[in-house]
Amino acid sequence: MANATESAEDRLIARYFRPLATHPGAFGLGDDAAALSPPSGCDLVLTTDGVIAGVHFFPGDPPDVIGRKVLRMNLSDLAAKGARPLGFLMSIALPAGVDETWLAAFAQALGEDARRYDCPLFGGDTDHTPGPISISIAAFGAVPHGKMVRRSTAKVGNRVVATGTFGDAALGVRLRADRSLRRRWRLTDAAAAHLEQRYLLPQPRNSLADAVLQNAAAAIDVSDGLAGDLAKLCRASGTAAEIDVARVPLSEAARTAVAAEPALIETVLTGGDDYEIVLTLPPDRLTAFRAAAQAAGVAVTEIGYMQEGEGARFLHQGKTLAFARPSYSHF
Amino acid sequence: MANATESAEDRLIARYFRPLATHPGAFGLGDDAAALSPPSGCDLVLTTDGVIAGVHFFPGDPPDVIGRKVLRMNLSDLAAKGARPLGFLMSIALPAGVDETWLAAFAQALGEDARRYDCPLFGGDTDHTPGPISISIAAFGAVPHGKMVRRSTAKVGNRVVATGTFGDAALGVRLRADRSLRRRWRLTDAAAAHLEQRYLLPQPRNSLADAVLQNAAAAIDVSDGLAGDLAKLCRASGTAAEIDVARVPLSEAARTAVAAEPALIETVLTGGDDYEIVLTLPPDRLTAFRAAAQAAGVAVTEIGYMQEGEGARFLHQGKTLAFARPSYSHF
Repeated sequence: MANATESAEDRLIARYFRPLATHPGAFGLGDDAAALSPPSGCDLVLTTDGVIAGVHFFPGDPPDVIGRKVLRMNLSDLAAKGARPLGFLMSIALPAGVDETWLAAFAQALGEDARRYDCPLFGGDTDHTPGPISISIAAFGAVPHGKMVRRSTAKVGNRVVATGTFGDAALGVRLRADRSLRRRWRLTDAAAAHLEQRYLLPQPRNSLADAVLQNAAAAIDVSDGLAGDLAKLCRASGTAAEIDVARVPLSEAARTAVAAEPALIETVLTGGDDYEIVLTLPPDRLTAFRAAAQAAGVAVTEIGYMQEGEGARFLHQGKTLAFARPSYSHF
Repeated sequence: MANATESAEDRLIARYFRPLATHPGAFGLGDDAAALSPPSGCDLVLTTDGVIAGVHFFPGDPPDVIGRKVLRMNLSDLAAKGARPLGFLMSIALPAGVDETWLAAFAQALGEDARRYDCPLFGGDTDHTPGPISISIAAFGAVPHGKMVRRSTAKVGNRVVATGTFGDAALGVRLRADRSLRRRWRLTDAAAAHLEQRYLLPQPRNSLADAVLQNAAAAIDVSDGLAGDLAKLCRASGTAAEIDVARVPLSEAARTAVAAEPALIETVLTGGDDYEIVLTLPPDRLTAFRAAAQAAGVAVTEIGYMQEGEGARFLHQGKTLAFARPSYSHF
């Protein structure tokens, strides 16, 4: 009798998503809304990002990877702003063919990442759709009041530093679409797998968020390509960036591909899906930032500096690169 | 040159959505994330809800109505929890056929409601989709610390009070699917238009939020049908509700339809899309709540009471109604 009024939707939510709602203010997903007492003296940092099958992932991609990817895309925004994750809301639309096995694997992996990044689920919305699988997350984090690291606060004379490596995901997605590229780019199986994995599963730099907060003058999450996203930071800050392409950090696999086909440098710099952070900082902060990054286990590389002017210039073998399409755009 | 790095996506966002981002912490949608300084002594109330063409609205429904509906669905959750709106994040996926005229009308109406309900846009995500128009909103509000009105705190002896009227939207959606019902239900053109309009455009009771906060023992947003949602409140609270169906408030139009076809009472009580609030409160709060509701211009009706036991019983003409499907479910 008590369960006669529980719908199938309620049961799915209780079974697969309630275990992710570990914060007491989520009320086990059993209310219309969640309640969160914000950390004292902090601002909330708010961001939203989503994925659609056939647009942001391949329709057959495994559900565990999809669950991790959509949360990590949002976590990467929080990391770039120097924010500590507090939690997320999720809206998920599933076509009729998606079964409970899919949902179980999706929720299991999402839950592992929610624990790993200390970012629990606070609420959700579950629907059927006549369209493709679509998942949208709204994530919220905390920074000390007034301290969110902005795009617009880079200063002339700042150094430009980047986390991780660039271009892996953009090369990985091309490899997945055309297997013959593996040979053309002279990639070993391991190198090809590395690039594809970097597309499937972003590695957001949340362990560096505090170092970004303490040291950065400005920062941006690089998700639409280094060239385009750095140009956005320059525009917002009213400064120019000069980047030495030879110093842009590439993985061994990306380096091999670019050596085989030099024109790929454009894919590397503009392809997107990197989920790395580019930040600017005063020169006297470089040592402290490097030390913090080393402690956090994240590679960081100085790639250039900010100067008077506008736009991000990428200097490559003595020339300024001109990009056909500097930034990934959905329109 | 400054705009050469702006993508079409950036331009769409700047043109149509930046005017909605009136809070300084939204940074004009020009950063990776927004920053919100939470009101002192308050908890955040977090909720998410979305719409998909062909599921929550008819594919040809006008864009202004869609924009208002999706925000109001979320505002209704905040109102039921006694929360004052602070803002929202929006994720929007559009098929290729949707043009800028659609987007302009959608954003214009959404912006009007954002101002009307004092709930500005803090950020968004815009994508193309091979599927139908899909829009998800995550809304956040504020209540004094620890005071969010829950579903689980109804007490035996509480009165049950409902806002507005029930069943209009559920009858309206049936009318839209089958025009011949208008005649069968003996509706005037004005009555039919009223029901259809109530489906298209929820009237969330945010003007009552403070009265709910001050007086309610428990409350729930009724979006999946009065019977099912009240049953959820009963289950969460470990109490039963006894409802006098004759007292459930119906519009003139709904009353006419039910008189013509008495079985429609089940549609009225279970159909959903009402976006009204059902709350329970101690009898000694009834007068204060009624006065506040009158001041806010929202009709409220006492429809029953809470007692020992479980489940929501609907007494109709001397019998307890049994529903084939007590609650709308997407699964």
